[in-house]
Amino acid sequence: MATDWVPYGSPAAVRAAARAGEIHTSTAPLAPGHAQANLVVLPSALAFDFLVFAQRNSRPCPVLEVLDRGDPVPHSVAPNADVRTDLPAYRVYRRGQPEEEVSDIRSLWGEDSVAFLIGCSFTFEAALSTAGVPLRHVELGRTVPMYRTSLELRAAGPFHGHMVVSMRPIPVTLVDRAARATARYPAMHGAPVHVGTPGEIGIEDLGRPDFGDPVPVRPGEVPVFWACGVTPQAVAAASRPELMICHSPGKMFVTDIPHKDFDVLHAAR
Amino acid sequence: MATDWVPYGSPAAVRAAARAGEIHTSTAPLAPGHAQANLVVLPSALAFDFLVFAQRNSRPCPVLEVLDRGDPVPHSVAPNADVRTDLPAYRVYRRGQPEEEVSDIRSLWGEDSVAFLIGCSFTFEAALSTAGVPLRHVELGRTVPMYRTSLELRAAGPFHGHMVVSMRPIPVTLVDRAARATARYPAMHGAPVHVGTPGEIGIEDLGRPDFGDPVPVRPGEVPVFWACGVTPQAVAAASRPELMICHSPGKMFVTDIPHKDFDVLHAAR
Repeated sequence: MATDWVPYGSPAAVRAAARAGEIHTSTAPLAPGHAQANLVVLPSALAFDFLVFAQRNSRPCPVLEVLDRGDPVPHSVAPNADVRTDLPAYRVYRRGQPEEEVSDIRSLWGEDSVAFLIGCSFTFEAALSTAGVPLRHVELGRTVPMYRTSLELRAAGPFHGHMVVSMRPIPVTLVDRAARATARYPAMHGAPVHVGTPGEIGIEDLGRPDFGDPVPVRPGEVPVFWACGVTPQAVAAASRPELMICHSPGKMFVTDIPHKDFDVLHAAR
Repeated sequence: MATDWVPYGSPAAVRAAARAGEIHTSTAPLAPGHAQANLVVLPSALAFDFLVFAQRNSRPCPVLEVLDRGDPVPHSVAPNADVRTDLPAYRVYRRGQPEEEVSDIRSLWGEDSVAFLIGCSFTFEAALSTAGVPLRHVELGRTVPMYRTSLELRAAGPFHGHMVVSMRPIPVTLVDRAARATARYPAMHGAPVHVGTPGEIGIEDLGRPDFGDPVPVRPGEVPVFWACGVTPQAVAAASRPELMICHSPGKMFVTDIPHKDFDVLHAAR
């Protein structure tokens, strides 16, 4: 009974609520302690090229699970879930353009659909908090700011483009600790890809993120950038596949797997 | 000049010597400091299923690079190399049977061939040495013993089978250190998959490995088991693809990448 009254306290409860159309906010605070995932759905003709693309660019696109062709069940990370209904919202890209936002993709799903679940920074944010590193966007109740960069990705087949990063302002004295804490989660984007100097990676104005909300960088802090799982959505815009379905940014798929299972050092014990 | 006289001291020198047919031993001691890789070559019709198989079983099959269809050049890990000629020996499997051992696969390679390079334990062995963990098989000048196990792998398409592990006898007091040192290299099989009790993972006799050479486990030591990159060769036997070309065990592809680049904590600095 103890956990029953916590709204959306378990991964299954979050997914059921998403299925029922009850979740209209970011999934970030829900089902605490459990990993969440970015979603990409493509026709099987593009699946190999996309998987190679993800392998070549594993910092932004660490693959947690590839579902079988036509199978909406992620047998490894959430064997009772259905990726067609269990996210709060989906963004449908046609020829690279975000055409609509829907709450269910059963009508778009076919025998030929292949779903990919990709690691999400919420796991390493839990590690940062545990390590005593403050998270400005969480303090302010905002979605982390995300930016398109000039960091070119290695192409595979039709997939090419530039990395999207998320930014967190970190006190100078805690940057090393933040880098080490997140490095332990290579399946969740791992260590930062850049520290300081946003101009060097093609970000002109930290105050105007491409996704999410802006947050202030205060004196004594530096902007620290991590590879971001929204990258495939920027890649869609550049690569223009006929159809590509993603989660709506911030509204993720909640897995059954505890964060700690993705900590490579924890796994050593 | 200082490094020129060391035979096979650089990755390019090892690959040139392999190409010239001059290497008849394990590549383990060659080009010290650089990562080596297991090789798998398949026809493109099987490439997606194999890549999903590797993703689902990333402890034994961590993918370092997937080459473009028909392209024998690993642009990421060794842009001047050719995987058709630059390994000392190849093992050719037809319908799962190891049919021949050849020194060059140009005549078997086609526009349709897709090569996969898979992480190799030599990288974490360097980390074990640095951490002060003795390596019995190195002391004895032998190839590490490898065993088929009862650890079932997650299937993908036609690919299925059981994990192959390598075994190193570790002093009881150093097991934790060995686990932590190797956990830092998830792309090189990471932390051990089992400690002690070989019978529990289906190994009947440590004295009779399925690949490599036996080594003694002495009083005060426990056998520690790591996932092994020879696993795809056991999978070939179970899955019986028409044609699958692998490296000959112990005779690996030498990459240009330093071991430390695969250390997730080093990458954090």
